[in-house]
Amino acid sequence: MTLRADGRSAAQLRDITITRGWSTQAEGSALIEFGNTRVLCTASFTQGVPRWLKGEGTGWVTAEYAMLPRATNTRNSREAVKGKVSGRTHEISRLIGRSLRAVVDTKQLGENTIVLDCDVLQADGGTRTAAITGAYVALAEAIEWARGEKILKVNAKVLTDSVAAISVGIIDGTPMLDLPYEEDVRAETDMNVVVTGSGDFVEVQGTAEGAPFKRDELDALLDLALIGTTELAQIQTETLKKSK
Amino acid sequence: MTLRADGRSAAQLRDITITRGWSTQAEGSALIEFGNTRVLCTASFTQGVPRWLKGEGTGWVTAEYAMLPRATNTRNSREAVKGKVSGRTHEISRLIGRSLRAVVDTKQLGENTIVLDCDVLQADGGTRTAAITGAYVALAEAIEWARGEKILKVNAKVLTDSVAAISVGIIDGTPMLDLPYEEDVRAETDMNVVVTGSGDFVEVQGTAEGAPFKRDELDALLDLALIGTTELAQIQTETLKKSK
Amino acid sequence: MTLRADGRSAAQLRDITITRGWSTQAEGSALIEFGNTRVLCTASFTQGVPRWLKGEGTGWVTAEYAMLPRATNTRNSREAVKGKVSGRTHEISRLIGRSLRAVVDTKQLGENTIVLDCDVLQADGGTRTAAITGAYVALAEAIEWARGEKILKVNAKVLTDSVAAISVGIIDGTPMLDLPYEEDVRAETDMNVVVTGSGDFVEVQGTAEGAPFKRDELDALLDLALIGTTELAQIQTETLKKSK
Amino acid sequence: MTLRADGRSAAQLRDITITRGWSTQAEGSALIEFGNTRVLCTASFTQGVPRWLKGEGTGWVTAEYAMLPRATNTRNSREAVKGKVSGRTHEISRLIGRSLRAVVDTKQLGENTIVLDCDVLQADGGTRTAAITGAYVALAEAIEWARGEKILKVNAKVLTDSVAAISVGIIDGTPMLDLPYEEDVRAETDMNVVVTGSGDFVEVQGTAEGAPFKRDELDALLDLALIGTTELAQIQTETLKKSK
Amino acid sequence: MTLRADGRSAAQLRDITITRGWSTQAEGSALIEFGNTRVLCTASFTQGVPRWLKGEGTGWVTAEYAMLPRATNTRNSREAVKGKVSGRTHEISRLIGRSLRAVVDTKQLGENTIVLDCDVLQADGGTRTAAITGAYVALAEAIEWARGEKILKVNAKVLTDSVAAISVGIIDGTPMLDLPYEEDVRAETDMNVVVTGSGDFVEVQGTAEGAPFKRDELDALLDLALIGTTELAQIQTETLKKSK
Amino acid sequence: MTLRADGRSAAQLRDITITRGWSTQAEGSALIEFGNTRVLCTASFTQGVPRWLKGEGTGWVTAEYAMLPRATNTRNSREAVKGKVSGRTHEISRLIGRSLRAVVDTKQLGENTIVLDCDVLQADGGTRTAAITGAYVALAEAIEWARGEKILKVNAKVLTDSVAAISVGIIDGTPMLDLPYEEDVRAETDMNVVVTGSGDFVEVQGTAEGAPFKRDELDALLDLALIGTTELAQIQTETLKKSK
Repeated sequence: MTLRADGRSAAQLRDITITRGWSTQAEGSALIEFGNTRVLCTASFTQGVPRWLKGEGTGWVTAEYAMLPRATNTRNSREAVKGKVSGRTHEISRLIGRSLRAVVDTKQLGENTIVLDCDVLQADGGTRTAAITGAYVALAEAIEWARGEKILKVNAKVLTDSVAAISVGIIDGTPMLDLPYEEDVRAETDMNVVVTGSGDFVEVQGTAEGAPFKRDELDALLDLALIGTTELAQIQTETLKKSK
Repeated sequence: MTLRADGRSAAQLRDITITRGWSTQAEGSALIEFGNTRVLCTASFTQGVPRWLKGEGTGWVTAEYAMLPRATNTRNSREAVKGKVSGRTHEISRLIGRSLRAVVDTKQLGENTIVLDCDVLQADGGTRTAAITGAYVALAEAIEWARGEKILKVNAKVLTDSVAAISVGIIDGTPMLDLPYEEDVRAETDMNVVVTGSGDFVEVQGTAEGAPFKRDELDALLDLALIGTTELAQIQTETLKKSK
Repeated sequence: MTLRADGRSAAQLRDITITRGWSTQAEGSALIEFGNTRVLCTASFTQGVPRWLKGEGTGWVTAEYAMLPRATNTRNSREAVKGKVSGRTHEISRLIGRSLRAVVDTKQLGENTIVLDCDVLQADGGTRTAAITGAYVALAEAIEWARGEKILKVNAKVLTDSVAAISVGIIDGTPMLDLPYEEDVRAETDMNVVVTGSGDFVEVQGTAEGAPFKRDELDALLDLALIGTTELAQIQTETLKKSK
Repeated sequence: MTLRADGRSAAQLRDITITRGWSTQAEGSALIEFGNTRVLCTASFTQGVPRWLKGEGTGWVTAEYAMLPRATNTRNSREAVKGKVSGRTHEISRLIGRSLRAVVDTKQLGENTIVLDCDVLQADGGTRTAAITGAYVALAEAIEWARGEKILKVNAKVLTDSVAAISVGIIDGTPMLDLPYEEDVRAETDMNVVVTGSGDFVEVQGTAEGAPFKRDELDALLDLALIGTTELAQIQTETLKKSK
Repeated sequence: MTLRADGRSAAQLRDITITRGWSTQAEGSALIEFGNTRVLCTASFTQGVPRWLKGEGTGWVTAEYAMLPRATNTRNSREAVKGKVSGRTHEISRLIGRSLRAVVDTKQLGENTIVLDCDVLQADGGTRTAAITGAYVALAEAIEWARGEKILKVNAKVLTDSVAAISVGIIDGTPMLDLPYEEDVRAETDMNVVVTGSGDFVEVQGTAEGAPFKRDELDALLDLALIGTTELAQIQTETLKKSK
Repeated sequence: MTLRADGRSAAQLRDITITRGWSTQAEGSALIEFGNTRVLCTASFTQGVPRWLKGEGTGWVTAEYAMLPRATNTRNSREAVKGKVSGRTHEISRLIGRSLRAVVDTKQLGENTIVLDCDVLQADGGTRTAAITGAYVALAEAIEWARGEKILKVNAKVLTDSVAAISVGIIDGTPMLDLPYEEDVRAETDMNVVVTGSGDFVEVQGTAEGAPFKRDELDALLDLALIGTTELAQIQTETLKKSK
């Protein structure tokens, strides 16, 4: 039985592609695709930390998310032209940063900074979860690079785990995995879940878009999300095994 | 056994006070206190809706959150002086707006707008959850006012339920309810839960501040949150029974 | 004969209330009420001075004024959301700062900074004069605090005098004291006068709203203002005698 | 006895020059000089009023003040580059606008708008008072122009009086008229007075820069100001008699 | 004889690739590569024109250029985060818009608007010339789309010619075509030339970076530029022949 | 045969006036007039360089261009009030800075900074070329001043040449020199050319406003421009010979 417009079953991810080393300029990079959603993630590694961290012996990892004006079906004004970053953009940037810091041992990173830029080239739902999942690959590449450059010690265990994220939602009463835009707008409840490679939670953000949701619906959505993030963790591992 | 610095048990709320009708200017208002956290919530009722909603026959409810510069232990610069609203402020304003809209039937509201302003006069943890809980009271007052003014029909059921919010967190491995600032900074996991008077979820936002959290920890935190929101719903009901 | 809507005579102040120590966070604070006008004044004491004053051996006192969006009868947009501070807000902040500096001996203050925040919680005319009058109390409290903390020497005479302010105006040809909003909008001439406890002038700002005013009208307004500030100075003194 | 660095007596104005019709583009214009202070004032007359005045049958007069970056002895950053107008600039723009509106009968102006731009080309004290005095001439020229163009009726009495302004201050205990920069920074009390051609007050703004001032000092300053504005009113009248 | 680091001769372009139809969201799109420089160009076609053009019967074509923060060798702050668009970005956006409008018959376009977004994904010199060349392809695609959708008449000749651009410069005294970043920083004179398919000039922007340049050097640079733009025009034509 | 509205021949400049030493505040200044176009150019000389140049032993020259709101025939909003500098303003400021740096030996300038402010008091076409031509005079004055003050060595050859600029354009098929506003808007092709006293090019910026232009038209425009800049160079030399 085909449940969904694109032929997927409820617990099935869209086609996932991660192209590592997409950029010839950045220390780490990945172009990640969740179906038609395409996000370019770059990791910029610089020695030193922001002033408020100096002398603490720990590093800093942060992220910025943005969308090209015509990533979506109709054009949005550029935030640079409007002169300010929207609440949504801020919120997602902060989420990506927190998610990655959850798997970074900043003591092992030493006084170095890594900035992850996640730019959505094309948007079809799930851009923040694709961004987190791709940013992890760019981050791992940048750390590998810093080891190669002898900026980090060869045996420094900067990453304590991997991290990936997926969206889940309830549509017409049925919990579903990895929502494209057309499902996202119809979802009664929408949840983004960030999970480590070991299967523990980093973030759980569930929102009732229509009616409030019940405890058992919450449980069903979390089950589904873990199916998705387990698969994403495997794809990340395989991608990082390939040479850049 | 006293677990906490302020003598509370793990599942106990701080002293909660709601003073309705605090403002002589606004259509609805409440000064809410969760211990030393004090938030002034006002509801501004205006006829008409933003341009993008005109002619749809539905109303609009939105919220803005802000903190006075010396609400906290050290002074913060004013966002107006810095010329922009921070990501944190945007994020909380959006959360409050979504939480209230979850219990509003915008068709019954008609083409009217209610803006909730939640200004933190003093901050000691839990400002966003106090804001949601107090804003509900101000909202209910404003709707009552509009009925008295015959702007809304006497039998229009604009509010489908009540809504309240509380923070929970894991401190030294123990799940605890309603964190003041000093507990909040120590929490390993921090969660804000928004719940209707009927006990269904509107928002669940859990974040691992240190180590990622397990499924059973998530469950324990949700149990605790429901204890808190049940009690808050009762206080809201009693407050709204009193004359303004 | 009752001259005014609220039953006051021309030379009578509204009910004045000053609650000192309102904030548990700030070094000094006062909630001041001129009738329905309510302003929360906090004083933030920090060691050190802005860069341009370093090494001069003198301190710095400054002020910021703002109004909550629903302090007034209809809601105003937040200045933080508009991304800039209005001319009116700037002008009043500067006035409050100048007024307080007139009674501070910055040499005695040493290289310390005091920032006064005056946030109008509810507005019904005279917000700038209430702010100056309340800020003086918060300032005095903060200096008392710094003496208790041994940051200032016990015998340092930082305050050379007290300072208070009141509005006066000509309404239907009659000079009147302490105008609420409904009188303020009708006044032909409007004047704000800032006076020390000794009865000398710090600021005199008179504006013809309608017809230009005569020299004898100016004199009558100044006489009236001095009646008001003398009474305010007594209330300030009594408030500061009470324990916090 | 020579009292002042530039050889003037206490009650003497600097050399005052008003060049009307300086601009070939604006409907009215005047380059005004108070000694080395030079302000270019232009009046832009446009038919129609801002939206909030439409249909009221009255006109609108407003002003904007600004200073070129190198008008002063050391260069200041441009406000356009900093992205915001300073509090001082706002305050002076508002003062100029209010001063001119005090002598305009907006009913007679009809639904027309006049914007006065006062740009300080060179600053040596008294820029705001020069701006008001020069802006009056530009305003009168623009009204004359509109009569010539038949936009205003020939007998419409738009201007009810003339208006001029001067600074006065107490220096080393002596009240003095029309302060250049070097006197202005030394003044204990500083006052700007705006007066109509008939000798009535439009604005009185007195500020204690050092010690608070006494009532008799205030009176002496007002006397001196009236000497200056009487002379300025004569110069304005003569200037406007000359053909453009 | 190998003249250049990448083995090219002085009059040789880098490898040029144009992938049309890269976006599944935009009405027209092209990913263009000049060596390592990669620019994503999208064309957004909307019916209607800006307010100031309404009722004129003519269309509007405009462009916005931007660079991802890590397009370059070291990371630049985002303009959205800085809250303003740099002078360089403005300048290039205006250049792209003018260049495309030179080959558009806005009467034939009717009251429709096309916005070209040129986002530099990776930068290695020549980003503005690649943007113009790629934007032309996206523009042509969008016009084709509008014809297919019957928004434009089948025989409307909106494009009067094609347009392409290339950089030229003098390096160590030798004029060279299509400078990558490492040549660009060394160039004594730098010129961007925009040329139609017919070989006429749309823009000539030559700048002496070091010593001023002679008339014969200018001539040599223009000759070289025409070689480049002729080749680019052929590539554009071939690209547009392929199905999307 | 009179070709032009103002009676000039095609190769004739408007009346050019340069008043050096216009400002009593700046280290260098010139009021330049090209017909009705009037630009006030000031040079601010300060010891020291921006942080990014410290310790390099070289100086810095930069420029800012702006227009008074009523310089033009109808009033424009102030950029300071709009809160941002337009693309056009940025572009011209950058052009002026580059043009002047082309004739400055920054090694000879030492670690000193010169900022050129070019404020258009009245605009009638050619404001950017007048600004460059006048700024050169202000720059030369400031360097002379610094020599007099012994900040620069007497024999330091900071200026390697003079620089001037002029606009040229094709109107009704005829190339013409120095376009006033009414010709500028009608020009099919518009070119600004910046040339040294020795006759070499610093900048060539040609734009097709209507139809693209041919190579021989470009040549004719360059010939005309050189006639103009040769004459301007002579006027600059004569102006600088006069005492300030």
